[in-house]
Amino acid sequence: MASPSASVQAPSGAIHTVRQYLTGLQSRITAAVTAMDGTPFLVDHWTKPAGEKLQGNGITQILEGGPVFERAGCGFSHVTGPQLPPSATQHRPELAGAPFEAMGVSLVFHPRNPYVPTVHMNVRMLAATPAGGEPVCWFGGGMDLTPYYGFEEDAVHFHRTCRAALAPFGDDKYPRFKQWCDQYFFLKHRNEPRGVGGVFFDDFSELGFDNSFAMMSAVGDAFVDAYMPIAERRRHLPYGERERAFQLYRRGRYVEFNLVWDRGTHFGLQSGGRSESILLSMPPLVSWSYNHQPEPGSAEHRLYSEFLVPRDWA
Amino acid sequence: MASPSASVQAPSGAIHTVRQYLTGLQSRITAAVTAMDGTPFLVDHWTKPAGEKLQGNGITQILEGGPVFERAGCGFSHVTGPQLPPSATQHRPELAGAPFEAMGVSLVFHPRNPYVPTVHMNVRMLAATPAGGEPVCWFGGGMDLTPYYGFEEDAVHFHRTCRAALAPFGDDKYPRFKQWCDQYFFLKHRNEPRGVGGVFFDDFSELGFDNSFAMMSAVGDAFVDAYMPIAERRRHLPYGERERAFQLYRRGRYVEFNLVWDRGTHFGLQSGGRSESILLSMPPLVSWSYNHQPEPGSAEHRLYSEFLVPRDWA
Repeated sequence: MASPSASVQAPSGAIHTVRQYLTGLQSRITAAVTAMDGTPFLVDHWTKPAGEKLQGNGITQILEGGPVFERAGCGFSHVTGPQLPPSATQHRPELAGAPFEAMGVSLVFHPRNPYVPTVHMNVRMLAATPAGGEPVCWFGGGMDLTPYYGFEEDAVHFHRTCRAALAPFGDDKYPRFKQWCDQYFFLKHRNEPRGVGGVFFDDFSELGFDNSFAMMSAVGDAFVDAYMPIAERRRHLPYGERERAFQLYRRGRYVEFNLVWDRGTHFGLQSGGRSESILLSMPPLVSWSYNHQPEPGSAEHRLYSEFLVPRDWA
Repeated sequence: MASPSASVQAPSGAIHTVRQYLTGLQSRITAAVTAMDGTPFLVDHWTKPAGEKLQGNGITQILEGGPVFERAGCGFSHVTGPQLPPSATQHRPELAGAPFEAMGVSLVFHPRNPYVPTVHMNVRMLAATPAGGEPVCWFGGGMDLTPYYGFEEDAVHFHRTCRAALAPFGDDKYPRFKQWCDQYFFLKHRNEPRGVGGVFFDDFSELGFDNSFAMMSAVGDAFVDAYMPIAERRRHLPYGERERAFQLYRRGRYVEFNLVWDRGTHFGLQSGGRSESILLSMPPLVSWSYNHQPEPGSAEHRLYSEFLVPRDWA
């Protein structure tokens, strides 16, 4: 069996197949959101101008100002570059500087109601061609949930849906990827997790091309079931200025994570990616205030003490 | 004459002298702000808990929710660390990994009225002790202005005040530091300057200790004259929802710069600095929206076409 960091050769037509899957996934997810929200997404097809370092195209879809979703971005992108960045080759020195091709779907939904959690999902494939070699490829992905007010049943449902999606690919996958998610979505400068986690994996090809692709697809396909029922059961809960203020404050953590720690955001912005597409993840409205400390025993305090802690949710 | 990157030995008592200057500067600036705003600053004395990587203390001062200033943070900090980070020793390989001491005053003021520009100022001293050697030190600092709606006379006044402050230290200083500021406060991912600039310098010791310290002090001392008259003449201008929305949108650029590009913020957050003090620079309320394009000919468009361009303001 191949080592976890080995990549596999992409069969002929793989790029086309994966692209078809990803654009289809994007369409299905945005359709599900519009069905709930009643607001269509703006659909922006873009192509990187010739002459830029990264070449490629994408479909940025965004819904702003809806009754359920204050800002929901869901982007597909497909780019090629002359050389893999160091951050992508730390486990693959043989690919350092190789030409690469990357495609993925990435989404972040910021709901209006503070009782509805923010959610992130991403699935992606990378392919690289080492000098004198055949193209090799690997997969990454995951999803994670960031509540403002915690509900145990939401966190449990989200994690169980992730676990069920991964089960056909081996019982080890969910626990490994759950832990990886907890480690990745962590604000070191706050010593605080971003939310209640979910699953995260990267550099994945250990099941061979077909099954690794199938696993990535299973995660993408599980998104609507993992998240939309949570949004549905919380979106009508009444809330007031206090809950709204806490939501805006906590959204600041999302900004801090994505701009300070997220490798994808950072690499994208620094390497010439399309800023407006990368920054789909930014919340519509955010606040910062000095040294906010929730009152002990309050619902806001419970977020920190009961939800932003490592837990076995599934 | 020493080369620009050479550092100088700190005379006996220098740390104490510089600290006295900096805490005094912080007091004078916050007093000037309170005199205008009518709101006192919250004053938070902090000490890093024993056992952390960085040791030290500071005085964080912050005013939130004032009639003129929606969030105005002005921090003094004085820390020591076991080894200089690589980002601080790129021009000084002989100091790589040396124990260091750093102190400074840093401020960012976010006014409520969109016609009043946001401003940033920082003055700092670093001292390091190479293995087997004497402590050496150097200075850095600067200030820069970020309008939402541009006024030529404001940019001119700000730059001329900076130029006058630096004039006693050589005619080359203002043009050098103005250009350095333009280069530093630039959002590469937007291909856009942060604002109309000002002055910025780092690694400075070429005038010897006394005069380099005097130059840093001249910049700090000029802040109140450079900025407060601008705030005074704009703070009563009437504005509406449109101007407020544009201000919140443009504040997003401030967040993007500080969290993605600013070396000080990044280093501080990643190295164990005090998050709440480092993030004093964050705006109180910020918005993001997709692909905002101001209407040609509008006041918002003029910000981009006439102010966020390289200009000789002084």
